[in-house]
Amino acid sequence: MKQSEIAVVGGGIIGSAIAYYLAKAGFQVDVLEAGEVGSGSTQAAAGMLGAHSEYKEFGTSLYPFARSSQKLYEEAEAAIRSLTGIDIERRTGGLLKLVFKEEERARLLELCSLEGVTWLDHASLTDKTPGLAESVLGAVHMEEDVHVTPAIACNGFRSAAQVLGAEIHTYTRVEKIGKEAGHYQLQTSKGKWQAERVVIASGVWSNSILEQTGLGSSIFPVKGECIAVTNTQAPLRCSLFHDQHYIVPRNNNELIIGATKVENDWTTEPTLGGIQTVMEKARQMLPGIDEMPFRRSWAGLRPQTFDGKPLIGEHPEMKGLFIAAGHQRNGILLAPATGKMIADLLSGNDVSEEWKEAFRVDRPYSNEEVLL
Amino acid sequence: MKQSEIAVVGGGIIGSAIAYYLAKAGFQVDVLEAGEVGSGSTQAAAGMLGAHSEYKEFGTSLYPFARSSQKLYEEAEAAIRSLTGIDIERRTGGLLKLVFKEEERARLLELCSLEGVTWLDHASLTDKTPGLAESVLGAVHMEEDVHVTPAIACNGFRSAAQVLGAEIHTYTRVEKIGKEAGHYQLQTSKGKWQAERVVIASGVWSNSILEQTGLGSSIFPVKGECIAVTNTQAPLRCSLFHDQHYIVPRNNNELIIGATKVENDWTTEPTLGGIQTVMEKARQMLPGIDEMPFRRSWAGLRPQTFDGKPLIGEHPEMKGLFIAAGHQRNGILLAPATGKMIADLLSGNDVSEEWKEAFRVDRPYSNEEVLL
Amino acid sequence: MKQSEIAVVGGGIIGSAIAYYLAKAGFQVDVLEAGEVGSGSTQAAAGMLGAHSEYKEFGTSLYPFARSSQKLYEEAEAAIRSLTGIDIERRTGGLLKLVFKEEERARLLELCSLEGVTWLDHASLTDKTPGLAESVLGAVHMEEDVHVTPAIACNGFRSAAQVLGAEIHTYTRVEKIGKEAGHYQLQTSKGKWQAERVVIASGVWSNSILEQTGLGSSIFPVKGECIAVTNTQAPLRCSLFHDQHYIVPRNNNELIIGATKVENDWTTEPTLGGIQTVMEKARQMLPGIDEMPFRRSWAGLRPQTFDGKPLIGEHPEMKGLFIAAGHQRNGILLAPATGKMIADLLSGNDVSEEWKEAFRVDRPYSNEEVLL
Amino acid sequence: MKQSEIAVVGGGIIGSAIAYYLAKAGFQVDVLEAGEVGSGSTQAAAGMLGAHSEYKEFGTSLYPFARSSQKLYEEAEAAIRSLTGIDIERRTGGLLKLVFKEEERARLLELCSLEGVTWLDHASLTDKTPGLAESVLGAVHMEEDVHVTPAIACNGFRSAAQVLGAEIHTYTRVEKIGKEAGHYQLQTSKGKWQAERVVIASGVWSNSILEQTGLGSSIFPVKGECIAVTNTQAPLRCSLFHDQHYIVPRNNNELIIGATKVENDWTTEPTLGGIQTVMEKARQMLPGIDEMPFRRSWAGLRPQTFDGKPLIGEHPEMKGLFIAAGHQRNGILLAPATGKMIADLLSGNDVSEEWKEAFRVDRPYSNEEVLL
Repeated sequence: MKQSEIAVVGGGIIGSAIAYYLAKAGFQVDVLEAGEVGSGSTQAAAGMLGAHSEYKEFGTSLYPFARSSQKLYEEAEAAIRSLTGIDIERRTGGLLKLVFKEEERARLLELCSLEGVTWLDHASLTDKTPGLAESVLGAVHMEEDVHVTPAIACNGFRSAAQVLGAEIHTYTRVEKIGKEAGHYQLQTSKGKWQAERVVIASGVWSNSILEQTGLGSSIFPVKGECIAVTNTQAPLRCSLFHDQHYIVPRNNNELIIGATKVENDWTTEPTLGGIQTVMEKARQMLPGIDEMPFRRSWAGLRPQTFDGKPLIGEHPEMKGLFIAAGHQRNGILLAPATGKMIADLLSGNDVSEEWKEAFRVDRPYSNEEVLL
Repeated sequence: MKQSEIAVVGGGIIGSAIAYYLAKAGFQVDVLEAGEVGSGSTQAAAGMLGAHSEYKEFGTSLYPFARSSQKLYEEAEAAIRSLTGIDIERRTGGLLKLVFKEEERARLLELCSLEGVTWLDHASLTDKTPGLAESVLGAVHMEEDVHVTPAIACNGFRSAAQVLGAEIHTYTRVEKIGKEAGHYQLQTSKGKWQAERVVIASGVWSNSILEQTGLGSSIFPVKGECIAVTNTQAPLRCSLFHDQHYIVPRNNNELIIGATKVENDWTTEPTLGGIQTVMEKARQMLPGIDEMPFRRSWAGLRPQTFDGKPLIGEHPEMKGLFIAAGHQRNGILLAPATGKMIADLLSGNDVSEEWKEAFRVDRPYSNEEVLL
Repeated sequence: MKQSEIAVVGGGIIGSAIAYYLAKAGFQVDVLEAGEVGSGSTQAAAGMLGAHSEYKEFGTSLYPFARSSQKLYEEAEAAIRSLTGIDIERRTGGLLKLVFKEEERARLLELCSLEGVTWLDHASLTDKTPGLAESVLGAVHMEEDVHVTPAIACNGFRSAAQVLGAEIHTYTRVEKIGKEAGHYQLQTSKGKWQAERVVIASGVWSNSILEQTGLGSSIFPVKGECIAVTNTQAPLRCSLFHDQHYIVPRNNNELIIGATKVENDWTTEPTLGGIQTVMEKARQMLPGIDEMPFRRSWAGLRPQTFDGKPLIGEHPEMKGLFIAAGHQRNGILLAPATGKMIADLLSGNDVSEEWKEAFRVDRPYSNEEVLL
Repeated sequence: MKQSEIAVVGGGIIGSAIAYYLAKAGFQVDVLEAGEVGSGSTQAAAGMLGAHSEYKEFGTSLYPFARSSQKLYEEAEAAIRSLTGIDIERRTGGLLKLVFKEEERARLLELCSLEGVTWLDHASLTDKTPGLAESVLGAVHMEEDVHVTPAIACNGFRSAAQVLGAEIHTYTRVEKIGKEAGHYQLQTSKGKWQAERVVIASGVWSNSILEQTGLGSSIFPVKGECIAVTNTQAPLRCSLFHDQHYIVPRNNNELIIGATKVENDWTTEPTLGGIQTVMEKARQMLPGIDEMPFRRSWAGLRPQTFDGKPLIGEHPEMKGLFIAAGHQRNGILLAPATGKMIADLLSGNDVSEEWKEAFRVDRPYSNEEVLL
């Protein structure tokens, strides 16, 4: 039987960031990943750090949490490069939230009071994005809503955690969790594992473990379908965003285009219909995309919660069992803040009471929706 | 300097079938292929043997040529299996030419006088294709317009030719052709080659060689874009065809969906716009396709001629130089008849005068169009 | 809550063949597959139907079972083609079991008393396999040990089952099994499912369900790593086999080369070291393989049992719960016989007492090994 | 007929860097690329900027040229990011030239007089590369021999050139070059093109054009085969190098492993034998590589010249026709210096006389070899 001080269940970007912050805090950490690191929802994401673009209002707990995570990425980027040589491909340029109709403009203009958010009219957009649709009235530019390459960022956290002593166990699926003589017992595809404390960070796949702990079915999948084309025209400097669809540029001139929202769909293959939907939205933003060579398509499963907020905290009854899951479409953005919050909780450091309350794993059901 | 009795320039399905029939006739054959066997237009094709579905009228030379080719496939299938163990995946079931409007019906009903062609009304279609669109009025079933898997069929001809003594030289690009002291001299990326007789069978890439022989620019590319989905619903027993678009089933449950027609486009990458076009046509025929997982997309270049007929025959001035190119979208269908005709011409066997005249490489320009 | 007469857990070739034979027998069948049909061990297999080449001795229950399965493939091939249009790519030519040393020869010569098994000395091998290593002394030719393309054969069974009324549910992972009020209750990623009878056919992934039923840990993974090259030389008409490694030809001229045996390894990625091992074995058989272009590599998990025989039969205590798993490296070969045996058991038809006893799911541990 | 001030033939990293420096100097540039940008030898390269590791001695023209190119990458990196948002993934850490034998040590120690080159004994290597083979005596660390991701760097130059006004024409194969009425005429697959000046930068494919200009056959292919694995162990901070083989880490934890040297081989597919060779060399350096998952393999063609130096300069007779090809295995390293030198030559700026002489396109044959 293997033994861990802390077992992190899940090696996506959330689990990897948790491992990094825990290892940095001096804990002995084992990550148990059912497949390969970052091979689930992480690799399917576009990687926008959309603290400003994603939320409906900015007084709640979630926006400050997201902002703090956005800022943690700067530190993490430097630390990862120094520990591992890896660059997580944080690309500046920010995000343009496009406006096609007058009513959209009004609502978005309110955001311009936020730090780093400015209004650009049609004319001043031309320079940044030469191929933009004629029908765009203008855009809100969110300068700090930059992006990373998710699989690379996840790999950066993982590798940095390894350098700091964490161990990563791939193809190790956790099937059952129990407590015996004061220790957690995990039954995995590779045999039994004992741990003093456990963090569940398996995204949408956390559910089957959570059910065993009495926490019910609080996370469900929302499938997102994406495609990539090669940009053969002028380089795109910013991400484009409209009506929950986006176009994100990569270093290799690929444009990442997404994403549909299909609730309760567990399939990880994009359908013909889903692909057509994202094509149409992309064309509205950037008409020249029609001439660009298509590269590939894929799908990922967002771990949805009832109110759009993640579950981060300790299990109400099972002491030493922590949960960090349900980050919806913002797992990349929220990974460092989540990792740090978990490490602070386990270290006994101070953590914002607002965040603890907002992300409490047994909070009552509400139909508030915090995402746009 | 290497020496051949006959050098075949091009290792697509046309060149491979020529090599097979020549080797069978006892010639010593070398195939010079710029890349890999079947890696150009051949692998991009759907493989329908559409002798009935492709042509406008049936008195011309081309229909009997296509029919003879369709029948040669039966022999070739058996011979290839016996020589190499390879099955060329000739799939029965035929082709349904769908009718959505009354005017289409009238025109198609005329075809029902042909052998193996019958009319099916909406009700009797249900059995064959459970998911067919409600708006289909009926279909003409062309029982003998079966299909093969093009890359496999090409590989079958190639391997059978090898067994019969032909040699295949890949990554051997022919750059220049000339005649010296009664022998053809080919300058290739692998050095000089001498041959007594030469057959140009490079599809759309034949042009740059043909220009060196004074034959002008008679072949140009028509790009076709395709996609594949996995059929998760009832198996499709027949190919579906409407308005130059098609859905063809494979053994692995993939549906091959094509194809656009983009003239004078040399790119071999499908564009986002091209893919959307074939998606829309496919959905009109088989609405359930919207739910099917998308697999991949690709494009190929059809070698187009001014009148829709291939160029098959000897060069008017350069004796011993033969051409077999310009098969448009029907290279798979016409490969065996083309291979046999070339072998007959080189052997001095009788060849239909009508075919020789119709496919003459220096025939005068006409704007007759033989394809639908 | 969905309801089935029979729920088959697993959509690999075993589950698909079971669904086919059950649907053919008139049952209402639902297949619950965690991912996509045939996407696990099935697609990783080479597809040899090695009734003669795989077993140590021929008096036991397993050889007659394998032979009956080999013969059922002929019927199944025809039935699948007739129901779905799909050809399962059963390729004749048989298998050559190569002999490099005198002591191997002696042991193999005994097999020549079996039907369709003959000895070929070095000279008579030349014709069949021109590129064979000089050091091969001879081979036993097993004419009926032909092969299919596993993903295609699986797809054939699945599609035929669909035509006969079975329903296939992909991305439906079964997590828990229980019995309530006389019905089986399956908890799946898509919600609860009720079935009158259940067949567990999840290969190596059956274990976590079996443990819930008290059957213990009887199946464990043996990883096999494979590669494919393109045969640029003379076509290979037979499969080659030596010392548990093989080279199997496909219609597209690929040679499938396998396979390592790594016990208790759940990873499904080939390692550099594993690939090197299969390369070396292949070169010993067919030295020219060194010059052939490499295509791809993959790995699969064989469901191993303690004695090399599958588990096929009813659960000793839970009536109506059947198991059909643990087919080791012979799942493709044994699929039709397994499907038919399960259908016969559920129909109340006669089944060989020897087979029932040999494959009993609670048979006592023995360290007999039936495989070579 | 299209018209250019300057036509650059070839859109690999050399042609893209030339286009960038020419556009920056104010010229109107069209790049004519036969396929896609960077799709030939560029994408196959590992991307080491090995100014110190690649050359035999350091007094010649080539080392200072390589050093200047290494330094130009710093400027280019910043300029490309500023113009396009693209990061060319220049990764620090440098290169370790490993020593296994005493005689290697002696020769390498001489290099330690160069800037940024230091000797590390076995013990001090441990930190940098935990998994290094026990048999390594030590290594020369070349701190400035960093690396970029070649396809990304090429894309960076291309996109920056586009922003500065250059136009890129893909799938435009140049077949013939001639001069008429003082203008260059290029015959391409997309029709005729007229240019005032022309730069041939097609790597190994430059030959067929060079032959038309009377420059003979000065460039020939040396095929290099590579593989990639995923590093599942401690991150590798430096590139490893021994006996012309190397292991280069990427951000996604892939290790790029190469490369064989196969002279006069035009095939672009790795063979089984070639892959085995690089596996063996890699294992000698980093034994744990045996356990790592294999990802993919590929091959590229290095444009070799008789003396190991590139051809950079004006054609001796055809004024206005420039050549920049034959960069062997150092095209990535030498791209910026080559681009800048061509732009200086066309602008009439001063260029080192030594470099002009050393890289003269009609220099006499010598069998000096400048590479290790």
